[in-house]
Amino acid sequence: MCHDKDAWLSYVKAVTSTAHLQRDTPELFERVRALTLDLAEPLSDADATVQSMDDASPAKWHLAHTTWFFETFVLRDVPDYRVFDDRYAYLFNSYYEAEGPRHARPRRGMLTRPSLDEVRAYRAHVDAAVGEAWPYLGDAARALVELGCHHEQQHQELLLTDVLHLFAQNPLKPAVWTRSTLRLTPTPFASSAVEKRISTALDTNGAQWGEFEGGVVEVGHAAPRFSFDCEGPRHSVLLQPYALATRLVSNADWSAFIADGGYRDPRWWLSDGWAWVQRDGIEAPLYWIGEGKGFGLDGMQPLDPDAPVTHLSFFEADAYASWAGARLPTEAEWEHAAAGLDANQGQFLDTAGAVRPSDHGMFGSVWEWTGSAYRPYPGFRPAAGAVGEYNGKFMSGQFVLKGGSCATPRGHVRASYRNFFYPHQRWQFTGLRLARDL
Amino acid sequence: MCHDKDAWLSYVKAVTSTAHLQRDTPELFERVRALTLDLAEPLSDADATVQSMDDASPAKWHLAHTTWFFETFVLRDVPDYRVFDDRYAYLFNSYYEAEGPRHARPRRGMLTRPSLDEVRAYRAHVDAAVGEAWPYLGDAARALVELGCHHEQQHQELLLTDVLHLFAQNPLKPAVWTRSTLRLTPTPFASSAVEKRISTALDTNGAQWGEFEGGVVEVGHAAPRFSFDCEGPRHSVLLQPYALATRLVSNADWSAFIADGGYRDPRWWLSDGWAWVQRDGIEAPLYWIGEGKGFGLDGMQPLDPDAPVTHLSFFEADAYASWAGARLPTEAEWEHAAAGLDANQGQFLDTAGAVRPSDHGMFGSVWEWTGSAYRPYPGFRPAAGAVGEYNGKFMSGQFVLKGGSCATPRGHVRASYRNFFYPHQRWQFTGLRLARDL
Amino acid sequence: MCHDKDAWLSYVKAVTSTAHLQRDTPELFERVRALTLDLAEPLSDADATVQSMDDASPAKWHLAHTTWFFETFVLRDVPDYRVFDDRYAYLFNSYYEAEGPRHARPRRGMLTRPSLDEVRAYRAHVDAAVGEAWPYLGDAARALVELGCHHEQQHQELLLTDVLHLFAQNPLKPAVWTRSTLRLTPTPFASSAVEKRISTALDTNGAQWGEFEGGVVEVGHAAPRFSFDCEGPRHSVLLQPYALATRLVSNADWSAFIADGGYRDPRWWLSDGWAWVQRDGIEAPLYWIGEGKGFGLDGMQPLDPDAPVTHLSFFEADAYASWAGARLPTEAEWEHAAAGLDANQGQFLDTAGAVRPSDHGMFGSVWEWTGSAYRPYPGFRPAAGAVGEYNGKFMSGQFVLKGGSCATPRGHVRASYRNFFYPHQRWQFTGLRLARDL
Amino acid sequence: MCHDKDAWLSYVKAVTSTAHLQRDTPELFERVRALTLDLAEPLSDADATVQSMDDASPAKWHLAHTTWFFETFVLRDVPDYRVFDDRYAYLFNSYYEAEGPRHARPRRGMLTRPSLDEVRAYRAHVDAAVGEAWPYLGDAARALVELGCHHEQQHQELLLTDVLHLFAQNPLKPAVWTRSTLRLTPTPFASSAVEKRISTALDTNGAQWGEFEGGVVEVGHAAPRFSFDCEGPRHSVLLQPYALATRLVSNADWSAFIADGGYRDPRWWLSDGWAWVQRDGIEAPLYWIGEGKGFGLDGMQPLDPDAPVTHLSFFEADAYASWAGARLPTEAEWEHAAAGLDANQGQFLDTAGAVRPSDHGMFGSVWEWTGSAYRPYPGFRPAAGAVGEYNGKFMSGQFVLKGGSCATPRGHVRASYRNFFYPHQRWQFTGLRLARDL
Repeated sequence: MCHDKDAWLSYVKAVTSTAHLQRDTPELFERVRALTLDLAEPLSDADATVQSMDDASPAKWHLAHTTWFFETFVLRDVPDYRVFDDRYAYLFNSYYEAEGPRHARPRRGMLTRPSLDEVRAYRAHVDAAVGEAWPYLGDAARALVELGCHHEQQHQELLLTDVLHLFAQNPLKPAVWTRSTLRLTPTPFASSAVEKRISTALDTNGAQWGEFEGGVVEVGHAAPRFSFDCEGPRHSVLLQPYALATRLVSNADWSAFIADGGYRDPRWWLSDGWAWVQRDGIEAPLYWIGEGKGFGLDGMQPLDPDAPVTHLSFFEADAYASWAGARLPTEAEWEHAAAGLDANQGQFLDTAGAVRPSDHGMFGSVWEWTGSAYRPYPGFRPAAGAVGEYNGKFMSGQFVLKGGSCATPRGHVRASYRNFFYPHQRWQFTGLRLARDL
Repeated sequence: MCHDKDAWLSYVKAVTSTAHLQRDTPELFERVRALTLDLAEPLSDADATVQSMDDASPAKWHLAHTTWFFETFVLRDVPDYRVFDDRYAYLFNSYYEAEGPRHARPRRGMLTRPSLDEVRAYRAHVDAAVGEAWPYLGDAARALVELGCHHEQQHQELLLTDVLHLFAQNPLKPAVWTRSTLRLTPTPFASSAVEKRISTALDTNGAQWGEFEGGVVEVGHAAPRFSFDCEGPRHSVLLQPYALATRLVSNADWSAFIADGGYRDPRWWLSDGWAWVQRDGIEAPLYWIGEGKGFGLDGMQPLDPDAPVTHLSFFEADAYASWAGARLPTEAEWEHAAAGLDANQGQFLDTAGAVRPSDHGMFGSVWEWTGSAYRPYPGFRPAAGAVGEYNGKFMSGQFVLKGGSCATPRGHVRASYRNFFYPHQRWQFTGLRLARDL
Repeated sequence: MCHDKDAWLSYVKAVTSTAHLQRDTPELFERVRALTLDLAEPLSDADATVQSMDDASPAKWHLAHTTWFFETFVLRDVPDYRVFDDRYAYLFNSYYEAEGPRHARPRRGMLTRPSLDEVRAYRAHVDAAVGEAWPYLGDAARALVELGCHHEQQHQELLLTDVLHLFAQNPLKPAVWTRSTLRLTPTPFASSAVEKRISTALDTNGAQWGEFEGGVVEVGHAAPRFSFDCEGPRHSVLLQPYALATRLVSNADWSAFIADGGYRDPRWWLSDGWAWVQRDGIEAPLYWIGEGKGFGLDGMQPLDPDAPVTHLSFFEADAYASWAGARLPTEAEWEHAAAGLDANQGQFLDTAGAVRPSDHGMFGSVWEWTGSAYRPYPGFRPAAGAVGEYNGKFMSGQFVLKGGSCATPRGHVRASYRNFFYPHQRWQFTGLRLARDL
Repeated sequence: MCHDKDAWLSYVKAVTSTAHLQRDTPELFERVRALTLDLAEPLSDADATVQSMDDASPAKWHLAHTTWFFETFVLRDVPDYRVFDDRYAYLFNSYYEAEGPRHARPRRGMLTRPSLDEVRAYRAHVDAAVGEAWPYLGDAARALVELGCHHEQQHQELLLTDVLHLFAQNPLKPAVWTRSTLRLTPTPFASSAVEKRISTALDTNGAQWGEFEGGVVEVGHAAPRFSFDCEGPRHSVLLQPYALATRLVSNADWSAFIADGGYRDPRWWLSDGWAWVQRDGIEAPLYWIGEGKGFGLDGMQPLDPDAPVTHLSFFEADAYASWAGARLPTEAEWEHAAAGLDANQGQFLDTAGAVRPSDHGMFGSVWEWTGSAYRPYPGFRPAAGAVGEYNGKFMSGQFVLKGGSCATPRGHVRASYRNFFYPHQRWQFTGLRLARDL
């Protein structure tokens, strides 16, 4: 996920093969489009309209923008396609600087019209048109349909986290869904790579450590499947020996950090982080509201001490690691440790329903902050033309997160997937796993 | 109307007589409560939820807050009254500093729940309870019912101007109502007072002037009818001879001001006004959007050159008067000129429908900026107790406006009525009438 | 004094007579110019250069700007006059919007060059040129010399209050002068007017009240001496009976207000004032720093409980009056009470030296906040031409203060003198005298 | 150099050997202390006092803070040492969060007292005390003297760039020194490493490229000389083949970028950079003021088209590289290319005098922006205890710069030296050298 989801189109790679497009994309399209509607099902017109902060977008905007994507990049070249409403391009295109003015991002919450029902009708119109056009589309257009599905999956996660943020502003603390969180079997990295071994010694937090020899290893995307272009080129890096904790930092761990005065001691904090803590009066993770409870899509609930702590900024994650005598993993360390694991196993978003992270595996549950700045890989070059307009555009000031979260649609991430946010942002399902040198 | 409508309770005067309360209040209550619902009728849940700026409140909030008023001040002492939802006090009471925390004003737009339908149910619940309780209420409670009606009339005007502001943010520029503006016969002040006469000479704008001898005159509220306490005590002031224009400044007049570079010439502006013009890039009245058109509750429409110009700040009104070689009237001058006129005649809000000012009379059409700062009258003393908590609270930095507007419910204003806003505010239906010394 | 001293030129009235110009101005010029240098004498180049807030100007700027005034308005038309440095017009003219760009006010503290010595040389150059030119000047030019002297007296007071503000920012809390405050005999208003009498009853603070019958009285400037044009036209106003306290509110009084929780109780405060108290964490008058001490031009000193409290905002003065069950006087009430008193008697600035208010008379000691907004008098019209460019420019959002202070040069003020500041400003020597209705 | 020079103490490494401390430090101390005074010599008390922005400090503060360093860390344990003024610790210690309150950084410009002369006396007092104490100091204290010298060298560069920024605010555009810039012989990297070769083909800008094979190379500090701890540990990294331009981007190059609309085309800019350009109205390097001229320590001078462009933000450097079809080098690429070069050769600060970059070598002239975020090296661990309080404190949001500038004291930098600034900052002598993949 990224700061401005509108830029994702730019990361599309060259199409890898015709075969999978033809075979898999129709099912993917149908599944993704249906899930978005399901996610929005419990929302009222008002719920779907309000924007609770500049970083967030209204649910209705997510529903419309993902639809505009297909209309613009796939359907506009289809003969006889009738544009649903030609004013929507201005409202729901927030992508191209070069294509002229568009509705300002912080004003997205002013759009009480069109209504949620009108946006649903827009979706139905476009879905039908894509279905009718599919048999006649070429590979380029089909690749754009595939891209649109991955793009929409990113907006599914944002829709959930943006709605969560909105509901958190309401003193009534409404629940989107009633609770039905599954406690999944964790899928630690340790079983997957021969050079890894679990340290027999427990550390002070009762965590075990998986150790890695390092050396020259490969990172970045290489497989024939879909990826965004910032995931490549695949390349070699040299790693020093390191260890990763076999579980995420938990709510209980975090309570100990707070009890030890972690938020009041500048020793643990980066200078920018300390300024943020003081300016914003930060004292706990974002949705730790009230005694022992946390707000989530299932409303106010007791915090499970064993569950991964979430809704942390990079600054908080980094401070905790300092306090714990450890550090954050680098992106390459994390990716190397995850190599060989099944990225589809873990706590992901499958269907609409209450989501809280409970699993400690590498994939799913919470996005794991790394200590790596989001910068281009060696040999990365922006694609030519309009879709490459913004390649690398976000590569300053942000840090990489890995692994996906309980709000990420299953199947969306992979080991090479690079999510990124500014170090103060924390309305996504973000957590951390400790690392240390060997 | 005032900056924070929640403070109006504080202005209630001692009840003037039992008779009119018993006789008139039930009809007033029924009429006011029904009109509010009518005004909200064309709004969707989303329309009624979003807050477009800190100065404005969502329509839903207006509907609920005016209802909370009756529940809190009338019903809470009624035996067996069942509170509709005890969480609403926190959400919809924004009045008493002394009664502890309440939902912050700039966050009113975050309340997607309760829904508009739930708020309507809240209104029905309270209306029924007031009706049942009425026969058993004492005079004090009945006076509070009357006060609640006047309070709600203020919120009716704010509801319209706040919705107008919200819709103006939408690039689709939706219309609340289709157009049905009546062109009323103006009711100038000139016919009403023996010492006034119409100057035979037309000035450069084709306006006539009514002249007044001045001297010691009475201003402030004195009649046995309802008023807010800032309207009194009635007292004498000494006026110099003066003249008032027999019509308001029109859209055509304003176009001439713009064409003459009025917004770019610091000579006409107060220092604070010039800073505001430059900082906010002000070039025209608030809703003059596009070529010769203005946005209103009936959407984008051509500007009628003869209609009064509206949505002006005090700064703009004052600059225009300087440019025209005139000045704004003082509050006392305006009130003296209006004495004897029927404050119920003019272009007011009678039923829901498209409203644009078109009349040039003293009452209705547009609120007229005066050159008088909103300060207490001689002998003004805050009432004792909770309802007087905020008396005079807003008496710094604001200017007085007189006469009501096309969005003011008919019957709400009188000559002594004191509306007030900060000099940069202009989302109300505000205009000006020129004055000059004799 | 006013927010932007550069605007004072605009207030000059028509010259009243040739005689006094010829007779008095040379001595006035010499005295005023010398006092400014004396005031700056203890300042280093650095002291005279730094700007401690946007509202303040560096001492060096005051020295240069007052000199630029004479160079521009008197000398530039004198044959053979050599401009000292033609770049100074840009640096030290902050007056005419119409005369193009000038150095931005908040950047005045960036001017480390020219040095204080160079500015002193500029003063000597101009002083000599004025002296040489005097015999040949016409009345218009001589009137401008007189105006320049009054203008410079205003800057003398600002120089002192701006330096005081600067030194207050320094943790070393340096003293400009050692202490030599005189305790003057107060000159109450009570002896001066037949209709006034001292109430025999003491109020709870031990203050006596002088009572006034009110009626139609005259206010505004009328005498043949110099005045600024906002002081006129002289006109009649109608006053209700009222009383004024015979002494100012003292430090001891203010301590009682604080001890009673005055700064924490919203009941006493205007809405804007309460917002200011909360946003800026206001808990005491501006320079009440540390236990029982206050910072002044003589450094940190114990607060004299009997001395007038000073460095108050209008908001604080108004809140105190509410707490005390009284109110602020109106400008007209104050001026009427001061009529007949000698405006030159009282605690004023005579020579350079430590200044703290200690006297309770109407004139001098502290500027007294009134409850009157600074607005034009009936019949006030801006002068034509360049010097009238800004007439009335500051007449929004500010309140009138009367009487002068211990930092005002003796002879500068009169009963009709109108000083004005925004309600939150308090770096001048501002205090209050209570009033009440009879 | 770093954002907050006060943190440098924390970067001290373990002392490498006693011998060089004994032998070299006295001369280093004498030379460094003398140069600082020389740099301040042309400054008036006012010049040395004013702070022109939050990022900058007054020259007087630099002079005092570097002195406070020796007093606090070396002299306070010396028997019989008399503290010069015990209030200075509060004024000039801006280091330890843990040691309680200190004068706020943005208020450093308020300190008109102590005067520049008093600060010079403070320096003399401490210099004499260090000289007297030297024979009796142990190695730990001597290492702190050495550290203090390197710390002061950083402040020498900041003193120059901060004074430059201050003088640039003055419309008179004063020159600190008359011009005496030397045109040095460039010292390109190409001669220093066997695997490097100069490409024979000239690129479109007439630049040549040095090519590097990459592979596993060593970076970070390893030598027995002094370094800051963020320069280590020395470690291996894996580089892809790459090329570096043999010269810096020049003023002429930059003019072509501007002429091509570089500042108005979002294609070249990072998203944060584009927001910065638009918000701040950026159109040229910081001191390109007026037609073909640039402001420097020698005042306004014509821009030399062949000289390196300087005073660029990272955003500008990155945008230029994108426009030129190239990229910024990584820190490791730069450091590898510089290995074997003499870091003392190049255009550095030797004595006080006018400085403008004119040389194109790797060391000196301008700091070269890299594409590497400033993050810790593998195995980096904060030192224990107070001096390590802030280790790594600045490692978020900043980018690394390499090589030193014409304002860096000769001898201060080395290939492993890591300077860092936020991507929008540009008041240092910052420039760029292009890189590309092979």
